[in-house]
Amino acid sequence: MNGIKEVKEVGSVLIDSALAEISPLDKSMMESAQQRLDILTKPKDSLGDLEEFAKRYVGITRDKAPTIDSKTVFVFAGDHGVASEGVSAFPAEVTPQMVLNFLAGGAGINVIARHVGAAVKVVDIGVNTEFDSAPGLLKRKVVNGTANIAKGPAMSRGEAIKCVETGIEIAREFAAPGAIFGTGDMGIANTTPSSALVSVFTGLLPAEVTGRGTGIDDKSYARKVEVIEEAIRVNGPDASDPIGVLAKVGGAEIAGITGLIIGAAAERIPVVVDGFISTAGALVASRLHPEIERYLFASHSSVERGHRAALDAIGIRPFLDLNLRLGEGTGGALAMGAIEAALKLYNEMATFDSAGVSTQE
Amino acid sequence: MNGIKEVKEVGSVLIDSALAEISPLDKSMMESAQQRLDILTKPKDSLGDLEEFAKRYVGITRDKAPTIDSKTVFVFAGDHGVASEGVSAFPAEVTPQMVLNFLAGGAGINVIARHVGAAVKVVDIGVNTEFDSAPGLLKRKVVNGTANIAKGPAMSRGEAIKCVETGIEIAREFAAPGAIFGTGDMGIANTTPSSALVSVFTGLLPAEVTGRGTGIDDKSYARKVEVIEEAIRVNGPDASDPIGVLAKVGGAEIAGITGLIIGAAAERIPVVVDGFISTAGALVASRLHPEIERYLFASHSSVERGHRAALDAIGIRPFLDLNLRLGEGTGGALAMGAIEAALKLYNEMATFDSAGVSTQE
Repeated sequence: MNGIKEVKEVGSVLIDSALAEISPLDKSMMESAQQRLDILTKPKDSLGDLEEFAKRYVGITRDKAPTIDSKTVFVFAGDHGVASEGVSAFPAEVTPQMVLNFLAGGAGINVIARHVGAAVKVVDIGVNTEFDSAPGLLKRKVVNGTANIAKGPAMSRGEAIKCVETGIEIAREFAAPGAIFGTGDMGIANTTPSSALVSVFTGLLPAEVTGRGTGIDDKSYARKVEVIEEAIRVNGPDASDPIGVLAKVGGAEIAGITGLIIGAAAERIPVVVDGFISTAGALVASRLHPEIERYLFASHSSVERGHRAALDAIGIRPFLDLNLRLGEGTGGALAMGAIEAALKLYNEMATFDSAGVSTQE
Repeated sequence: MNGIKEVKEVGSVLIDSALAEISPLDKSMMESAQQRLDILTKPKDSLGDLEEFAKRYVGITRDKAPTIDSKTVFVFAGDHGVASEGVSAFPAEVTPQMVLNFLAGGAGINVIARHVGAAVKVVDIGVNTEFDSAPGLLKRKVVNGTANIAKGPAMSRGEAIKCVETGIEIAREFAAPGAIFGTGDMGIANTTPSSALVSVFTGLLPAEVTGRGTGIDDKSYARKVEVIEEAIRVNGPDASDPIGVLAKVGGAEIAGITGLIIGAAAERIPVVVDGFISTAGALVASRLHPEIERYLFASHSSVERGHRAALDAIGIRPFLDLNLRLGEGTGGALAMGAIEAALKLYNEMATFDSAGVSTQE
């Protein structure tokens, strides 16, 4: 449980109305789901978390036999002014280059999405490049990259709100019965604002929640921690004002992920959360509504330091332990396969009665 | 690394010749695979264990672009005399009932196998029931259940050898380019011999490697630990004689799994190891040949106490953390999806050059 008790109003009709639509899961349907799980031909609870996934899925969708009919991974892309501080192993030009790679189908997320039968939608919410229209590209630019958080706020409060609204609009647009969403990110230097966010919301020191991102050396790592400390000192983010934190030390793609999750929960669509950046976005969402966490499925435990703390702060537990640190939505997409398996087990397994199997003594 | 240095001859032509065929992985091909992994559009090593899976797969199959063209889960079934000691929550009749459930497609393993596109083959290697022929059933009965290990050996040395040979023969029969095998088990009370085996090979006390199986209460659990201690005292298994250990405190399905793994390694077919019982069988195989572990992919970390110790003793690391304890091959089958994704990433991702993406600075 994430500990917050009340819904936070943020002063945007679109955001506040989505937050108001988010309801607790349907307890009575979850109890019925548990009864079904207990008559399937297996020792009680022996499918572990897969049983919890199925039960929670019933509670989210209010469908007593839920199936996954469409999978979509939204890769939110944005540039970061803080890249100029030398906090990443890659140059900033890689953000738009990778957007083109996603659109051409050559990136890691494309391969995993094809493998699990998911569509990939790339959302340009804050890349400092103009893209031509292309299939799979959602042109929703709010900012041309953020400003350098080591010197001042990443963006204005209005821009942060617009990014969250954009995520909500996308969730509304793609909402459909049987849909599941995955979060993804692309943005050179975006582990830096993510660590800043996680530090603000968990109260852990920047050094405790900062990793090596794409793979920086000791010197750059020390600089990265300094930059995050500086960003927090300069901007003075207040954890009780999540939108303010996003504006001060966040990023456009992180705010877009926050919005996608809020919109999905309003539409009762389950969301699989990918790695560190996605989890930072989810953490912001979880600070705006106490029930958000129940709509989320954690996927993998990233190598990135601070990921586990962020997951714990939301109250969700990852189940893939593959030492991933790619982002893009890769771990989340991979996890979709196991979540789908959980629903199939729930729907398709024989019961003790139907199979003529003796029950526990 | 499992620590053993030499191949153990066991005095069976079929087993010894299979062991003699097992070779180290192809190092030079693995180096080439690493070079390819390093030019794909991702930060170096950022796909973590998925990269290791792909590289090792190349080394196992000696195919520079390996694909998975067929998946088969072998569910070895056997009865256990020790069930009469009250060590399981289910009656022994459930073993044949579940075999019929597998053949009808209603069990957990059937659902997950369908989900990942795997075939299920049920091997009657030691069930105390005669089955009619059925599609998907391999009738290879060696024993009509084992004897009660609390009173004497589970089976004769000759029978244990025959069980291992049966597993090897099945691996030979189903070996094909692009094949991957999964191990599975069914046998009421089979966590009891598995814990005994793991205790013998790891040197850990029975209580340290004994769990609650299908879900027994405190009293039955205490009895189960006593039974395992008794089995080891009565039979005096010698860890340096793995076949002898199988005969004394093992089970037919466990020995079959040992054989399947040996045969698969001889044929250079990767094997995904399921939970506690499968891992006990794999542990025996790893004690017969020092290279066996390199052909194995661990899947999940079971709730069953002792599973982790068994995996560590082999030297393989699970990547699914779902609190499973069903067996049947379910966790292994689920893991096949991720292993297949690893090969697709390796084969299908764009390179920095082909995608026009700038490399690490």
